[in-house]
Amino acid sequence: MTATTDPYMQLLGLKTQLLEPGKAVVAAQVKPEHLNIHGSCHGGFLYSLADAAFALASNSHGTPAVALSTQMQYFKAVRAGEYLEAHASEENLGRRTATYRIEIRSGERVVALFTGTVFRMEASG
Amino acid sequence: MTATTDPYMQLLGLKTQLLEPGKAVVAAQVKPEHLNIHGSCHGGFLYSLADAAFALASNSHGTPAVALSTQMQYFKAVRAGEYLEAHASEENLGRRTATYRIEIRSGERVVALFTGTVFRMEASG
Amino acid sequence: MTATTDPYMQLLGLKTQLLEPGKAVVAAQVKPEHLNIHGSCHGGFLYSLADAAFALASNSHGTPAVALSTQMQYFKAVRAGEYLEAHASEENLGRRTATYRIEIRSGERVVALFTGTVFRMEASG
Amino acid sequence: MTATTDPYMQLLGLKTQLLEPGKAVVAAQVKPEHLNIHGSCHGGFLYSLADAAFALASNSHGTPAVALSTQMQYFKAVRAGEYLEAHASEENLGRRTATYRIEIRSGERVVALFTGTVFRMEASG
Repeated sequence: MTATTDPYMQLLGLKTQLLEPGKAVVAAQVKPEHLNIHGSCHGGFLYSLADAAFALASNSHGTPAVALSTQMQYFKAVRAGEYLEAHASEENLGRRTATYRIEIRSGERVVALFTGTVFRMEASG
Repeated sequence: MTATTDPYMQLLGLKTQLLEPGKAVVAAQVKPEHLNIHGSCHGGFLYSLADAAFALASNSHGTPAVALSTQMQYFKAVRAGEYLEAHASEENLGRRTATYRIEIRSGERVVALFTGTVFRMEASG
Repeated sequence: MTATTDPYMQLLGLKTQLLEPGKAVVAAQVKPEHLNIHGSCHGGFLYSLADAAFALASNSHGTPAVALSTQMQYFKAVRAGEYLEAHASEENLGRRTATYRIEIRSGERVVALFTGTVFRMEASG
Repeated sequence: MTATTDPYMQLLGLKTQLLEPGKAVVAAQVKPEHLNIHGSCHGGFLYSLADAAFALASNSHGTPAVALSTQMQYFKAVRAGEYLEAHASEENLGRRTATYRIEIRSGERVVALFTGTVFRMEASG
């Protein structure tokens, strides 16, 4: 797995900053088109940023991994113009499943926390 | 709360089909720009579709509501061209918090399940 | 899989009321030893009741199933003396994973909601 | 809030090892009555251990806190005789809500991970 971006990341303006086994950092700036009905950053955009880091980190070992179950905790409202980073690290790596923690940070503040579990598919070929 | 769309929904092509107290349906067609590194619909797009229905349903009572905690279960891979609907219903409505269930359906199949809890803010003014 | 109880269910006074493929109902009365520091039913007891129904339902197809990821939403405080039922139903049954919904009811009220995903092991032998 | 145990903790043999603002450690040894139908430690027991640490940590600031939403990820099977510790730390402390991370450890291994969000009630009196 060497891809570091995909069409959905490009649509949202998400950039991969780091990718190594079990780790990934994805970054984005919040633009006006990412806002919700309250005028703050849409929860779906924050999730998508975390989910991109989750996908990269969980596919970083060469075994295709697909998301089974994820959770998101929202801590702080985020405004247009903020620069965000999603930092993914590995909580557990099993043979058939693995779990990742993704912190979304705006500067020093953790604004949201994502936890996700993948199913690891048999290597094909 | 009468808005039925926001900038992020427009960016992703999400359309509100139904909005009534405690309920919402949001729909979208999966386009090439919504795909992930495996060539199937990105988990962040599926979540965003559910989250849009969650936001509309949870803000439908006139009390501003902000997401606290959400969960997503992925059941089936979704391909480009599929037409999806997210159906939000109310699991619990308390004074300060409320919980919603959102099913993402492609035709008859439920492809993902979202559960979300909001904090209901004091009415302003 | 024909067992309908286990040592932990016996410790907590949990009784299996129904078990059929993909479904289970487990019941219990809340006793003084199930209370928390606030004098209401402990969240761990409510979870254990739901988890017992989840384990029975997910193991009901003859394929051993182990829990991967679970979520619990608490809606109402429960008091000593209440009679509770946990109703498990199948949200999704895949080849290697499956997801269940468990409602905890006290009379007509849903007091908590549990969602859980299992990994289904290869049949042995 | 100075209580460090409650009736349910006593029923399960859970002992508070540490309690300070925003932190708690609760420990237990897995006994035969804590096992499930597969002969390993019941998921409800592991959750209850984590939940006890969550309750103590979230009530440690003097403001009564009640659980809204929790998640559990199971990593490793646990056997009878193992000595477990649940370590709770604060992910976020807001005015009306707060989120905690609880690791369940058996020696050096993290066997399960719990994340929980509470609603913080108005101080009484």
